[in-house]
Amino acid sequence: MAPDAPPDGQRFDPSDSRQATRSTVTGPPRGILRLGHVDVTVTDIDLATAYYTGVMGMEVTARTEDSVYLKCWDEEDHHSLRLRYASRVGMDLMSFKVHHEDDLADLEKKVSRFGFPVERLSRGETLGQGESIRFSTPSGHVMELVADVEKVGTSRRREPLAPEPSDLGRMVRDQIAPPRMDHMLITAEEVGDSTQFFMDVLGFRITEQLLDGNGHQLGTWLERSHSPHDLAIVHGTNGGLHHFAYWLDEWDDVRDAADILAYNGIQLDVGPTRHGITRGSTIYFFDPLGTRNEVFTGGYRPDPDFPTLTWTEDNIGRAIFYYEGELNDRFMKVHT
Amino acid sequence: MAPDAPPDGQRFDPSDSRQATRSTVTGPPRGILRLGHVDVTVTDIDLATAYYTGVMGMEVTARTEDSVYLKCWDEEDHHSLRLRYASRVGMDLMSFKVHHEDDLADLEKKVSRFGFPVERLSRGETLGQGESIRFSTPSGHVMELVADVEKVGTSRRREPLAPEPSDLGRMVRDQIAPPRMDHMLITAEEVGDSTQFFMDVLGFRITEQLLDGNGHQLGTWLERSHSPHDLAIVHGTNGGLHHFAYWLDEWDDVRDAADILAYNGIQLDVGPTRHGITRGSTIYFFDPLGTRNEVFTGGYRPDPDFPTLTWTEDNIGRAIFYYEGELNDRFMKVHT
Amino acid sequence: MAPDAPPDGQRFDPSDSRQATRSTVTGPPRGILRLGHVDVTVTDIDLATAYYTGVMGMEVTARTEDSVYLKCWDEEDHHSLRLRYASRVGMDLMSFKVHHEDDLADLEKKVSRFGFPVERLSRGETLGQGESIRFSTPSGHVMELVADVEKVGTSRRREPLAPEPSDLGRMVRDQIAPPRMDHMLITAEEVGDSTQFFMDVLGFRITEQLLDGNGHQLGTWLERSHSPHDLAIVHGTNGGLHHFAYWLDEWDDVRDAADILAYNGIQLDVGPTRHGITRGSTIYFFDPLGTRNEVFTGGYRPDPDFPTLTWTEDNIGRAIFYYEGELNDRFMKVHT
Amino acid sequence: MAPDAPPDGQRFDPSDSRQATRSTVTGPPRGILRLGHVDVTVTDIDLATAYYTGVMGMEVTARTEDSVYLKCWDEEDHHSLRLRYASRVGMDLMSFKVHHEDDLADLEKKVSRFGFPVERLSRGETLGQGESIRFSTPSGHVMELVADVEKVGTSRRREPLAPEPSDLGRMVRDQIAPPRMDHMLITAEEVGDSTQFFMDVLGFRITEQLLDGNGHQLGTWLERSHSPHDLAIVHGTNGGLHHFAYWLDEWDDVRDAADILAYNGIQLDVGPTRHGITRGSTIYFFDPLGTRNEVFTGGYRPDPDFPTLTWTEDNIGRAIFYYEGELNDRFMKVHT
Repeated sequence: MAPDAPPDGQRFDPSDSRQATRSTVTGPPRGILRLGHVDVTVTDIDLATAYYTGVMGMEVTARTEDSVYLKCWDEEDHHSLRLRYASRVGMDLMSFKVHHEDDLADLEKKVSRFGFPVERLSRGETLGQGESIRFSTPSGHVMELVADVEKVGTSRRREPLAPEPSDLGRMVRDQIAPPRMDHMLITAEEVGDSTQFFMDVLGFRITEQLLDGNGHQLGTWLERSHSPHDLAIVHGTNGGLHHFAYWLDEWDDVRDAADILAYNGIQLDVGPTRHGITRGSTIYFFDPLGTRNEVFTGGYRPDPDFPTLTWTEDNIGRAIFYYEGELNDRFMKVHT
Repeated sequence: MAPDAPPDGQRFDPSDSRQATRSTVTGPPRGILRLGHVDVTVTDIDLATAYYTGVMGMEVTARTEDSVYLKCWDEEDHHSLRLRYASRVGMDLMSFKVHHEDDLADLEKKVSRFGFPVERLSRGETLGQGESIRFSTPSGHVMELVADVEKVGTSRRREPLAPEPSDLGRMVRDQIAPPRMDHMLITAEEVGDSTQFFMDVLGFRITEQLLDGNGHQLGTWLERSHSPHDLAIVHGTNGGLHHFAYWLDEWDDVRDAADILAYNGIQLDVGPTRHGITRGSTIYFFDPLGTRNEVFTGGYRPDPDFPTLTWTEDNIGRAIFYYEGELNDRFMKVHT
Repeated sequence: MAPDAPPDGQRFDPSDSRQATRSTVTGPPRGILRLGHVDVTVTDIDLATAYYTGVMGMEVTARTEDSVYLKCWDEEDHHSLRLRYASRVGMDLMSFKVHHEDDLADLEKKVSRFGFPVERLSRGETLGQGESIRFSTPSGHVMELVADVEKVGTSRRREPLAPEPSDLGRMVRDQIAPPRMDHMLITAEEVGDSTQFFMDVLGFRITEQLLDGNGHQLGTWLERSHSPHDLAIVHGTNGGLHHFAYWLDEWDDVRDAADILAYNGIQLDVGPTRHGITRGSTIYFFDPLGTRNEVFTGGYRPDPDFPTLTWTEDNIGRAIFYYEGELNDRFMKVHT
Repeated sequence: MAPDAPPDGQRFDPSDSRQATRSTVTGPPRGILRLGHVDVTVTDIDLATAYYTGVMGMEVTARTEDSVYLKCWDEEDHHSLRLRYASRVGMDLMSFKVHHEDDLADLEKKVSRFGFPVERLSRGETLGQGESIRFSTPSGHVMELVADVEKVGTSRRREPLAPEPSDLGRMVRDQIAPPRMDHMLITAEEVGDSTQFFMDVLGFRITEQLLDGNGHQLGTWLERSHSPHDLAIVHGTNGGLHHFAYWLDEWDDVRDAADILAYNGIQLDVGPTRHGITRGSTIYFFDPLGTRNEVFTGGYRPDPDFPTLTWTEDNIGRAIFYYEGELNDRFMKVHT
């Protein structure tokens, strides 16, 4: 028999009160778990949907009057990207998933105490998810936290005879078909203040940072999920979205992504190349409406006991693009 | 400037009481963090050391009268493997690192309450680490937990001029040189009971399981670090070590490992192949004294909200070796 | 504009007499060019066709009453595999392409002078090709030589706007979809005599050989196309087909092939592994009727001025399967 | 026993008259075999040698008063690169190896008849090789042809116990260590005339071409060795060297090359990327004195019966750099 739902009691259930009352050392982890979904606005929702399905290989899980919801093939949750029609391209919000329903109240308290108003949305106000909270970050972004997200299942089919190839990380490759969303990079006028907020109020850990000559943070890389970054912040206008990034499994997938993008007439922004920061291999490119996407792989596994790595501005070229050793204007200045 | 130690206050410090008193949702995580080190006995310590350095590419961090301590190049901690001279090959203990010093007391209490005596070792009793606790598991293995481990730094050199290649995940490849230890697999007469202990008392989460026709667990895969497994248990004699495994970054590294092993006259046990369970790519082989090693890559990222996958015995071949679809006697019966 | 047919006069045309009369040093090469097609018999032509299209990813180029003709996506010629219905599985013939129509007469003369009768088939007697000659080899195989083969074009589409992904070596990967057929391995009672025939009469060059303790050839690897082998001969019954092999571009494609085979329930014979001889990476497996297939990549580029490599029987394990270091009975004894 | 020299009579020997008198269809091939060596001038021979050994991983096979001779690890011949001290960086000559000593006289006749004077050098006049001929091409380059080159053996060691890792295509990877030289690209004022010379007089075959709006050749790709190109010509000043290129085995080696170059402070010119023409994956970069190097892999296997592919100028971006879809000034204008 193929992998299937587990017998009763062996699956973590966020509503299972026995688990919730376990001690902190052996109970399930608490707080922010990972990036859940990115909500962006697009000026042509059909074109955007055609791209995110036909080139990127995401699946549409729901459509409403003004929005399309999509997920990657190896994601269980309802969606990791929402496209909403609007008259300009931009970012609606970033939604992070928390481990447990109770974490919402705790984090609401922390954000409120920090002085930022928090809005609470009930189940049903947002498609595919239960109660959530929303607030503005010091960087001027709307952030959502949610614990209860509808599971729509992965594309790993569950027939009785054999494990399916998609169980094994492979999908038909006329689309890029990344297994999942990985991280996002936002812009902020005051990187240091914003970073402090994400660390102190929301519990992110800093894995790497880029400092200017005066020791001020020009960019910070923050994680909650044992990855090099779930969220990064670089200097720029408040509320800006530099890019969101999909995970790929290896360097050959990066080459395949470049082949598929080029075949579809999409010019690359930067890459294939490697970052000094995070060590990851990468390509940047723009969706047809102008939102920057990234495909990303590699990097190291930064457990919480790993030291933060610090880079200085005189080495910014290698820090960002290790092979080129220099930045380009488009990468530095263009964002949505 | 190359990556360097972070400015004060931006590095997680397990002894930092301000961090320790943070709320559970935003403070650093608690409990078991990952596999720390495997301690095995060898009948020829020079031969074993020659193999683990010259073929596997680990670095010796310390030697004592009867033992050699080794680490992988991208590991910060003092060692991930201890070889101790003894008259037979076997396993001394498995040591898991916990997030915080305070976790030791909490976990000591839980294990004691479960009815198992716990021994406390003070700083200095074990090389390279502070206070630790030790106890026997229901599977008859000695388990150690420790929070405070001496950091000896990675091989990522820190010269001022440029990021180093080892920063970028590449090392000279006449050795396999995996970046880090990944997981271990132990044998137990009662897989179900042992699994329950690791879940309930120590807080492991089950990612996949293999059931016999009566629904009993034949094997379980358990994690604490957002990986497909930090520890796995399969049916066998109590106290046995089936293998410990090193992480590799991608499938090409698996081929390179096979080339290096074959060049050194080491016959492979199984592989290169893929597991159905964990989806990982793998090779098994034996060190010159007979302890089974694995190199492992791939798999998926099983966040704590991912469902447990269940496999049944009629599909055991594909579950273990997805390409061959069948097990071999040596793999099933031979362990140390 | 995408790649297209060349202007007049810039494409090699075997019937172009100006080219044919060029001097031997600057004219097009002469003699055998490469393996053209393998003709095998199958006991269930629908099942065989389903496998060679649905799993292997070849394209059907023609069907007749008793046969199906197939080619790989990057091959220009009419077919590289013919499946013919018969009551037992076996090999009808191996067809090699020669550079020029005139080569047929020259080679016919050489084979006849060697004492072997040669049959001449006119255009139309065999589907998709012009005049050809046929004869038996000392190893008891029917060999065909042909210069004029209908070109049906590759799957590289030729639309005006952009190079196509298949131009770039990538195809949809729910099938293995190798770009082309690479080589075949036949069995012979007298490897030495057969090898002599292929070298002296047909002009093959020996790249590697495996000798027994008395210096007799147990296996020979022969080429005409700057590859490690177009044809290999190992000890066995006369007239036998050990396997034919498809080219893959790299090691990651070998892993993908294993994934696709396993997903389709096809158990691997041997591999993924590496050969000592040819250095190539490989998987062996059987089509559903029992003919052994191989996927092969790597190896070196053995220009005609490279020395022949000789292996001896005491090292036969490493010579054949470099990682395992030993042969298995099935690989040695089973062929069609 | 490891691969060794073959028994008498089974190795192709260019001086073996029996072989030389074989018929053209079954004898060894004739004419130009492949690119043999590139001779360039450098303004700092120690720096250049440090780079070509320490970064590129070539081996020095000989030194004379003004020159250093180097080869790649899997090359048998005396050298594939000669560095000669001079007051400016440039190209001395390109040397192609021919199959047989007799080919020299035939080709000398053809070049002379074309109206170009041919110089004959006796054995000993050039290090590591026998008699050769030299002449200027219409593109203003000095071309050398030679049959008899001293074989110094590959780095494949020949100890009795086991095949060596370098037999298997792997070398220590703190240098790029390509197995061999692959091709070169020269510049010419009249690409069409030069191409005609290389085809008609020297027997090259055109695999791909790039045409301007009037159908004139802007670039041509030419082969003699079943590879996508041994020599390419693009529009530019006569006598110029755009780059010479090393072969790598696969895309992961391209990434490793980029890592090694970046670590050594060498900024990439273009890439990692893919060519539309040849389909190959590539990086361009400059040696410390300013000669452009390339590492190249992939492409297809263009047998002599494959049609020439034609690209037009409106698609030049994708033809040259398939991912970027555009050329950069440096690539177009800078050469030595």
